[in-house]
Amino acid sequence: MKKISIQEVAPRDGLQNEKEYLPTESKAELINRLSAAGFDKIEVTSFVSPKAVPNLRDAEEVFRLIDRNPNIIYSALVPNERGAERALSVKVNEINLVVSASETHNRKNIKQSVEDSFNRFKEIMAMTKMEKVQINGSIGTVFGCPFEGEIQEERVLQLIEKYLDLGVNGVTLADTTGMAVPNQVFRLCERLFTYFPQLELTLHFHNTRGLGLANVAEGLRAGVTKFDASLGGIGGCPFAPGATGNICTEDLVHMLKFMGYEVRPNLDKLIETSKFLEAHLGYELPGQIMKAGIISELYPI
Amino acid sequence: MKKISIQEVAPRDGLQNEKEYLPTESKAELINRLSAAGFDKIEVTSFVSPKAVPNLRDAEEVFRLIDRNPNIIYSALVPNERGAERALSVKVNEINLVVSASETHNRKNIKQSVEDSFNRFKEIMAMTKMEKVQINGSIGTVFGCPFEGEIQEERVLQLIEKYLDLGVNGVTLADTTGMAVPNQVFRLCERLFTYFPQLELTLHFHNTRGLGLANVAEGLRAGVTKFDASLGGIGGCPFAPGATGNICTEDLVHMLKFMGYEVRPNLDKLIETSKFLEAHLGYELPGQIMKAGIISELYPI
Repeated sequence: MKKISIQEVAPRDGLQNEKEYLPTESKAELINRLSAAGFDKIEVTSFVSPKAVPNLRDAEEVFRLIDRNPNIIYSALVPNERGAERALSVKVNEINLVVSASETHNRKNIKQSVEDSFNRFKEIMAMTKMEKVQINGSIGTVFGCPFEGEIQEERVLQLIEKYLDLGVNGVTLADTTGMAVPNQVFRLCERLFTYFPQLELTLHFHNTRGLGLANVAEGLRAGVTKFDASLGGIGGCPFAPGATGNICTEDLVHMLKFMGYEVRPNLDKLIETSKFLEAHLGYELPGQIMKAGIISELYPI
Repeated sequence: MKKISIQEVAPRDGLQNEKEYLPTESKAELINRLSAAGFDKIEVTSFVSPKAVPNLRDAEEVFRLIDRNPNIIYSALVPNERGAERALSVKVNEINLVVSASETHNRKNIKQSVEDSFNRFKEIMAMTKMEKVQINGSIGTVFGCPFEGEIQEERVLQLIEKYLDLGVNGVTLADTTGMAVPNQVFRLCERLFTYFPQLELTLHFHNTRGLGLANVAEGLRAGVTKFDASLGGIGGCPFAPGATGNICTEDLVHMLKFMGYEVRPNLDKLIETSKFLEAHLGYELPGQIMKAGIISELYPI
């Protein structure tokens, strides 16, 4: 049985887009419940400007409040040196850098050019050299940009190379606004592995157009073993009102389990925690397993 | 470009599960709009007992009211001889027979054994011998039964053989309650084509657990070129309250188009018709493209 590793991103990518602010204590309880469900990695928060993402303004407090399981990597998104300082002050296990493959999207999202982003990453690498922290490099809008449209595969290859030159431990390719289609995912991942056979690659999909799990299946076929997902499927994109968010963690775990893969998170605990999150957010989450039930739960004859 | 053929099933599989009865005139308008969008086949209704499926009690009237495009096959589901008589009286282009792979599900759904179902099909084949009508044989619960659980592949192969012995034109494999996982779909379809290389095979998926389009992608890989789908994704299963229904037609067409396949239905007309259906049903439909928009619709920079 092939082992698939899942990073839970609801506390960061999910909560950042919510209308309501989830209180710090509830965030910490959510993360503790996620830790108990058994993830390999949890993206806890984002060390960005509180003005840009007010929902995550309590980043340090959340890190201080949570119980850290030594078998789980507690990661945080960091766009610049100030963010890295803050992240190091609470001893995150991983810093997740982020840049967009699309120049336009990077300027809109991070307010700087892609080149400037990489200049800042170089500073961050220097800052963290003596620290016990691993670095992941994320690339957004890899499978399409809502402003520029198609992204050339060569562009993605170049950005991966830039990250590897910096010395990151792994790279994440993100379909930021849910524009990937299945054969595109297979094609790109297959090509990547011929250039970078040892790459620690994570795929990050959004289910905006219903293709999230189809894209995961194509990633699996190409040999990818690491995926991001968000509990209950929270994390809608501001550019697509009404559309669903990240791929749903419990739906992903359910799929992988019944496809015969080995996955760490406990499905019953995930469903329970998803219902806890739903109760706190106060609306019906897009996740489907929490409504339809697990395939193996049969009805009495 | 490989051509993929889509059968629209919202007027039958979709509407049969709705809480409210859609008036006959609205059904006819829906079907006329679907015809204008350009399908290869539309499943118009079901000739079953009005007591069993009150929503489709107007089957004959619907068939009489709609405009028939000679390039479209207007199909109807028929479980027994009485249904076949009714279907022939309004000159349906295709009769869609249905049996479950699961003995228990067949007894619950059609109130008879699988053997009895095939005895009735033999009578129907005799009744239709001199008529200008094609026959499709559907098999439900192929990828799992909510009562019995796993269905053996051998069982499915045997039922296909039984249908082919009767002389049907094509066979549909249905994942009635959304229990299929991607690698299972590929494995079964690949195996089928080695036994029945000429089989006119249609796959019918439900998105109950978020895997509908992932399962389509695996069917495509195995060489399947015909799929059922339901406008707006309507058609929930009574055994999974809150779960979504059939795979959504416009989401499927969108995926196929951007994967590079040739598909007949016009995406803009589908989205328009899905909004028309949503307005008539009075609640938010599960389809995602009608909310998120088409991938190629970019935002101004």
